[in-house]
Amino acid sequence: MKTVAVRNIERANTDTVEALGVLGVATVHEAQGRVGLLKPYMRPIYPRSRIGGSAVTVLAQPGDNWMLHVAIELCKPGDVLVVGCTTDNSDGMFGDLLATSCLARGVRGLIIDAGVRDVAELQDMGFPVWSKAVSAKGTVKNTLGAVNVPLVCAGQLISPGDVVVADDDGVVVVPRRNAESVRVSAQSREDNEASKRERLAAGELGLDMYNMRPRLEESGFIYLESVSDLED
Amino acid sequence: MKTVAVRNIERANTDTVEALGVLGVATVHEAQGRVGLLKPYMRPIYPRSRIGGSAVTVLAQPGDNWMLHVAIELCKPGDVLVVGCTTDNSDGMFGDLLATSCLARGVRGLIIDAGVRDVAELQDMGFPVWSKAVSAKGTVKNTLGAVNVPLVCAGQLISPGDVVVADDDGVVVVPRRNAESVRVSAQSREDNEASKRERLAAGELGLDMYNMRPRLEESGFIYLESVSDLED
Amino acid sequence: MKTVAVRNIERANTDTVEALGVLGVATVHEAQGRVGLLKPYMRPIYPRSRIGGSAVTVLAQPGDNWMLHVAIELCKPGDVLVVGCTTDNSDGMFGDLLATSCLARGVRGLIIDAGVRDVAELQDMGFPVWSKAVSAKGTVKNTLGAVNVPLVCAGQLISPGDVVVADDDGVVVVPRRNAESVRVSAQSREDNEASKRERLAAGELGLDMYNMRPRLEESGFIYLESVSDLED
Amino acid sequence: MKTVAVRNIERANTDTVEALGVLGVATVHEAQGRVGLLKPYMRPIYPRSRIGGSAVTVLAQPGDNWMLHVAIELCKPGDVLVVGCTTDNSDGMFGDLLATSCLARGVRGLIIDAGVRDVAELQDMGFPVWSKAVSAKGTVKNTLGAVNVPLVCAGQLISPGDVVVADDDGVVVVPRRNAESVRVSAQSREDNEASKRERLAAGELGLDMYNMRPRLEESGFIYLESVSDLED
Amino acid sequence: MKTVAVRNIERANTDTVEALGVLGVATVHEAQGRVGLLKPYMRPIYPRSRIGGSAVTVLAQPGDNWMLHVAIELCKPGDVLVVGCTTDNSDGMFGDLLATSCLARGVRGLIIDAGVRDVAELQDMGFPVWSKAVSAKGTVKNTLGAVNVPLVCAGQLISPGDVVVADDDGVVVVPRRNAESVRVSAQSREDNEASKRERLAAGELGLDMYNMRPRLEESGFIYLESVSDLED
Amino acid sequence: MKTVAVRNIERANTDTVEALGVLGVATVHEAQGRVGLLKPYMRPIYPRSRIGGSAVTVLAQPGDNWMLHVAIELCKPGDVLVVGCTTDNSDGMFGDLLATSCLARGVRGLIIDAGVRDVAELQDMGFPVWSKAVSAKGTVKNTLGAVNVPLVCAGQLISPGDVVVADDDGVVVVPRRNAESVRVSAQSREDNEASKRERLAAGELGLDMYNMRPRLEESGFIYLESVSDLED
Repeated sequence: MKTVAVRNIERANTDTVEALGVLGVATVHEAQGRVGLLKPYMRPIYPRSRIGGSAVTVLAQPGDNWMLHVAIELCKPGDVLVVGCTTDNSDGMFGDLLATSCLARGVRGLIIDAGVRDVAELQDMGFPVWSKAVSAKGTVKNTLGAVNVPLVCAGQLISPGDVVVADDDGVVVVPRRNAESVRVSAQSREDNEASKRERLAAGELGLDMYNMRPRLEESGFIYLESVSDLED
Repeated sequence: MKTVAVRNIERANTDTVEALGVLGVATVHEAQGRVGLLKPYMRPIYPRSRIGGSAVTVLAQPGDNWMLHVAIELCKPGDVLVVGCTTDNSDGMFGDLLATSCLARGVRGLIIDAGVRDVAELQDMGFPVWSKAVSAKGTVKNTLGAVNVPLVCAGQLISPGDVVVADDDGVVVVPRRNAESVRVSAQSREDNEASKRERLAAGELGLDMYNMRPRLEESGFIYLESVSDLED
Repeated sequence: MKTVAVRNIERANTDTVEALGVLGVATVHEAQGRVGLLKPYMRPIYPRSRIGGSAVTVLAQPGDNWMLHVAIELCKPGDVLVVGCTTDNSDGMFGDLLATSCLARGVRGLIIDAGVRDVAELQDMGFPVWSKAVSAKGTVKNTLGAVNVPLVCAGQLISPGDVVVADDDGVVVVPRRNAESVRVSAQSREDNEASKRERLAAGELGLDMYNMRPRLEESGFIYLESVSDLED
Repeated sequence: MKTVAVRNIERANTDTVEALGVLGVATVHEAQGRVGLLKPYMRPIYPRSRIGGSAVTVLAQPGDNWMLHVAIELCKPGDVLVVGCTTDNSDGMFGDLLATSCLARGVRGLIIDAGVRDVAELQDMGFPVWSKAVSAKGTVKNTLGAVNVPLVCAGQLISPGDVVVADDDGVVVVPRRNAESVRVSAQSREDNEASKRERLAAGELGLDMYNMRPRLEESGFIYLESVSDLED
Repeated sequence: MKTVAVRNIERANTDTVEALGVLGVATVHEAQGRVGLLKPYMRPIYPRSRIGGSAVTVLAQPGDNWMLHVAIELCKPGDVLVVGCTTDNSDGMFGDLLATSCLARGVRGLIIDAGVRDVAELQDMGFPVWSKAVSAKGTVKNTLGAVNVPLVCAGQLISPGDVVVADDDGVVVVPRRNAESVRVSAQSREDNEASKRERLAAGELGLDMYNMRPRLEESGFIYLESVSDLED
Repeated sequence: MKTVAVRNIERANTDTVEALGVLGVATVHEAQGRVGLLKPYMRPIYPRSRIGGSAVTVLAQPGDNWMLHVAIELCKPGDVLVVGCTTDNSDGMFGDLLATSCLARGVRGLIIDAGVRDVAELQDMGFPVWSKAVSAKGTVKNTLGAVNVPLVCAGQLISPGDVVVADDDGVVVVPRRNAESVRVSAQSREDNEASKRERLAAGELGLDMYNMRPRLEESGFIYLESVSDLED
């Protein structure tokens, strides 16, 4: 591994990042063609947060949070810390002191493919975290990793400056260069859903709204009148 | 697989289904002889829901929610959608649009051995879900499955029309024909627990209330006075 | 296994136990040198409980809660029930009746490397539980285990009378003899953190506060100006 | 649970059962429409066994193998013991003594959604097992279960007398009444595969043999000449 | 954690240790009352090894094998290295170089609640390992742990000098002081099994040999003649 | 997702690829700085294969192997098929027919973050596979994915043309451009290990060979003479 930190990274347009955060994970994920979703084991430590931000990436070693300290210096307001690990690890690499430091610098939240501690305090501070585990196990500062390099976090490639969106449905990454086009598609998708929602609420069926009946029939799908017809 | 949907299924008596829902999972499970409990990885997406309903069953393919659209047409007020999958899959097969459609038709909730998305919206709508995972990953509508056939969901056989009870303790299925007799046993069990609860609250021990001391002694169980006696 | 129960165990000083409970898991774990933390799969059934208590230990057989009844008689006010199992098991060994009995005797909570049921009722009663699973599956009373013997629970050795501290970050055990010295270290650690928190909140970096820059440099850590420098 | 054993069960035709065993899991599973496959965590304890047999089913309690003794009396030559458990359990419910008893009665193998022990001895005896775990933990004989009732084993419903086929690819169940028709389809499928195998070995592509190119094109699939075209 | 190594440990009698190794895991585990079995995820990296040895214990940090080097100096011929970790970790802490060193000092094998690498080479060298994972990920030598302290490995307390027995069924630990008495019980158990095996091979049923029929009847177990009787 | 296939990819020098295959996973992984190792759940379906090859990458949908057929046409002799999936899936996407086709085109093996079937036949054919699961569950050809795009497989980014090395220790990827420099480092590392192996075989300790004693002492590591000194 190149044990380095990159000081300056490019970020997407601030308004775009904010807008993606508001649109939310499910809509953004659909809008960019169903790619970029982190594995579903990444869960929020408390409900009802929704953030969008620019990724400052950290590649950490198991049981070691040295690189998180390096990363915080490189964060700007609106950033999100994204921590991958060189191997599966659930240690509590981040707690209320690091969160205090993050808040002081305008960091919006943490995405960590490892553990987090002080979760009650983090909720009281309003600092949202999506993690693989909650664990009080503290970590050492002995082995170098890297900051602001491309890395894999929970199954997705994330590069520094990519947009990260997180809410109760999980976490999705949008490559920085696609951020604005994904925002446009996501907004259009959301506008489109409102009318669908109305029609469904009025009792219209998805079968009809999406015109699925002909394709079901072509595919050979059969309706039986009762369970007893199954036996034949 | 027979790629079919059964239009008409028999359901248990409405009052029975309601009553089972009120009695709750733990009591119903005990009352029917400790069978029918789905695996404990099935968890509610938000706390404090408690439902009973008649199962409309869906056998889905991984990453494909086509059959859910077929199923909703076949639901009646008071039903619960029960989704099994032909293989382990955590994709978000169900979100707020499908929930809107379900609510419009009086469906009480969803039991899905896969993933669900839009969980904050579902909570706001008051549509409860018990699932294996939360995932924003959307699904295609390309491969046929089946609706209203008997299937295995989270380790239990569920037939269309069976009664499904779900609360914070998980999900239990009651075969349709046994619903009323299980309700009677469960009610009697609950009545009986009230007096037990009082006695225990007053300080009586389970050891005495259940008369366990003689059987402990017969089994050769020994009381030592202190930890140092362990060494001997 | 010696199928025995030990009636009388030594406990740590009451004030010490209380104080450790207030200090919380993360601080106590750090203060005793990062040992004693139970595996992070042990999660609270509802948020925001924080307890300290003296362990009454139970070694149970899979699917069998007989020994829990034996243990409750041996509990004193301020105790915490700690249940290990001879093999991995998620059955609901404990529910609202046992919790009623525990509350009647002043037991503060339950740590169980297995399942628990009636979780909504337990929350309403204010009886906190940290468990591996939530499961409505009831258990038999057929096979002997042991009470108040040293055992392994979720990866940690726990002896009867050890102090158990549990909160939203998990569960940690402190050997009885070390309880007071750990309390002193933990208190001093907490006092120390307040000033660190202030400095970090004021924008000082961990890099500077902990004087990490020289060691980073000695270790060969390199700062690059931009991502494009990575390619070289 | 009904704590019963059924003495007499119907079995499929012996020649059909043998033939299904020879055809193997992958072919039989395809031939019956891709249903009936047990979850892939069921693995053989040693490689290169391939069996077909009639299921004698056992519903066991966690940590308890009492019902296996009951079941062996009801086995006939050519049967396969199929063990489900009322909850997830990895204990070693079966070892060389039970295998000796099975061999004496002509039982062909064991499918167990739990653990097995003495695996080296079982291999030396030529008694194949497909299990969830290998574990030396012995079990008690204290709690009743059931024998020859329909049950769910590793995610599939299995009724007594159903045909079970197992090899290095896993385990599949064929409902007794479908056994002969599945055998016919499976044989025809296998005959058909020989010619496909020859054509593929000669260098013909699946794309051509299955005529996939037109459907790829209709679906909008695009070929690019080089990776650099991805960026556009 | 006390970051120490203990130079001199007591070991059980050599003949006793050897005999326990020959008796094997399943027999030894039963003979000492079904305690001491490590979790079944501990698997041999190649089949058909069977060892008994005295434990030299290592408490390692995640991703760090420094303490293994410390431990090897303290090993004597007939010892087995037993490695626990302060948190779940699958890194390859041990490979062919350490195995060469172990063989040079007469170490019989490795039990590691983490990963191992060079597994083909280890098999060729005849150095058996039971581990949680196989992983080529190398480890650093940066953070202190401890050697020859009591620790928990894969769910069991192991003290330096305890006897460790491992074979294809897994790993069991026998406290040093109990080693000879367990050997005696295990030998007697094995002698006893030979006659049981003969009787079972001759067709006698466990139901009769263990006289289970009366207890089945007392427990209310019922035999039905056919599956159709289940419906009643 | 861009549903495309890239026809022409660049590959590393043939001799380099071969040499990396011979050097093996553990050595290559170390030589490139401990990056690029796939998660350790990727296991060979049979022991003692060791391959190096150029990656032809496939991004598949769950339960769907359509893209594998597309990919085989684009393979050249010496290539390795690398299959990632858009979500966790264990279905058997690959069996003996596809292996026949692969062998006909000179493909050296398969790395698949999903399932594989016909594993006995694949071993007989000498076609090695590293997979997450073995499963007989066949797959459909209904939903487009992509071929020869960069993807994440078992936690690592793999681009088409990267070198993949696999053996009993797992799977590692080497970026195409680094292949030759990694080969040089790996070869030098292996040369260096021979002399270390000799010294260790002769009884020299790693503690001395790596000069660890001074650093242990500086770090505050303490040697005690006996376990009883631990209590102090």
